[in-house]
Amino acid sequence: MKKLILVRHGQSEWNLKNLFTGWTDVDLTEQGIQEAKQAGKTLLQEGIEPQMCFTSYLKRAIKTLNNILDAMNMDYLPVEKSWRLNEKSYGDLQGKNKAEATEKFGEEQVLLWRRSFDVQAPALSADDARSPYNDKRYAGVDRAELPLTESLQDCINRLMPFYTDHILKAFEKYDTVLVVAHGNSLRGIVKTLKQMSNEEIIKFNIPTGIPYLFELNDDLSMKSDRFLADEATLKKLMDEVANQGKKK
Amino acid sequence: MKKLILVRHGQSEWNLKNLFTGWTDVDLTEQGIQEAKQAGKTLLQEGIEPQMCFTSYLKRAIKTLNNILDAMNMDYLPVEKSWRLNEKSYGDLQGKNKAEATEKFGEEQVLLWRRSFDVQAPALSADDARSPYNDKRYAGVDRAELPLTESLQDCINRLMPFYTDHILKAFEKYDTVLVVAHGNSLRGIVKTLKQMSNEEIIKFNIPTGIPYLFELNDDLSMKSDRFLADEATLKKLMDEVANQGKKK
Repeated sequence: MKKLILVRHGQSEWNLKNLFTGWTDVDLTEQGIQEAKQAGKTLLQEGIEPQMCFTSYLKRAIKTLNNILDAMNMDYLPVEKSWRLNEKSYGDLQGKNKAEATEKFGEEQVLLWRRSFDVQAPALSADDARSPYNDKRYAGVDRAELPLTESLQDCINRLMPFYTDHILKAFEKYDTVLVVAHGNSLRGIVKTLKQMSNEEIIKFNIPTGIPYLFELNDDLSMKSDRFLADEATLKKLMDEVANQGKKK
Repeated sequence: MKKLILVRHGQSEWNLKNLFTGWTDVDLTEQGIQEAKQAGKTLLQEGIEPQMCFTSYLKRAIKTLNNILDAMNMDYLPVEKSWRLNEKSYGDLQGKNKAEATEKFGEEQVLLWRRSFDVQAPALSADDARSPYNDKRYAGVDRAELPLTESLQDCINRLMPFYTDHILKAFEKYDTVLVVAHGNSLRGIVKTLKQMSNEEIIKFNIPTGIPYLFELNDDLSMKSDRFLADEATLKKLMDEVANQGKKK
């Protein structure tokens, strides 16, 4: 039985400050580190041992993965990092407070930026200090591929080549694969596996730090899916995600 | 100018307890973590930016690398891990106190095990719980390649294919490569680059947590080498390594 485990990174410094983060490379909080360690312990308890790992170019995901592996005593596992697993770019909103943006632009507009399938936030200018064109980590990437802002659709579109050519391809060699990434890049994988519509995926909130296990058929289609947590924990986490835009 | 940087992992829990470690997967101490972070800061200060990283299958090296990268804000760099960069196997000595071994076997014998080029410590039995045959992380490695004990020579011999085919090969794509590993596996690289005799390399102690920079010629031979630390720091660290066998 092939298994794919998705984990959304735990609390980051900007989750805590309620800022739009996107491609900004903010760190985990201590709570975020503890969430990651707990995810590792959960995988151990469930007897699920990844053999290959994927993560993004952003440290909140990378450090979540490192802490999961360390909690499992499996630091030695191979890890491949890709910018294609990065969070959705929030363009010029990056660094702005979510509640303040709601006051300024109105709840409807902010909800469109946060929860629509194909609406992009205002773009960064190419010479902005926050632009990926000016970040050495993306120096090896064709500029035409790098976003100055993204809708969820854009995020999923740039994820898919990596999902197909690296993550799914890993199952030729491995039975169990772990992907640690971000709310929106993981939505791309969930949408594909669960064959969700655009409307369904925007309503689907992935809780942070909870391993999300997919058992796969031989053709790598989904056989079953479940979050590795009790129902009370899950409901609490999903409510928190759904309420993020409302609090200041 | 091609650059190769070697870093020996910082203090581990068993360094502190003065136990033979070898392939035992012990953790870093808090001091070891701080040494790693300092190594990252030193690289930043020197303006040296790795583009590709290699480390062993042992968490004291992996976590040293993770902490170096995090101190540099370069968590996103590609990392390749290999068992061939592991510390020299100390066979059946693993887990035994160095000073107690000196009392039991005599200083001369222990110095032979620790500081000779071609003398192996007593081997583990294949069914020992400590044997790599019984460790899932090595499940993908041909058993004939896995050591039950090693001399420094054995350690260097199993390192060299990886050094040639992966580390040196990385310079086809990258200018600056970082290798974080262990006292004896790094000796193999130093011996090769500095064209040292067997007698020279056994006397050569690599201090922990200090970036060791090699500038390379176009043919990847050594152009220059230096430790990135002031002389007082260096002397202190080298004396500590040389005195390890004497203290209890």
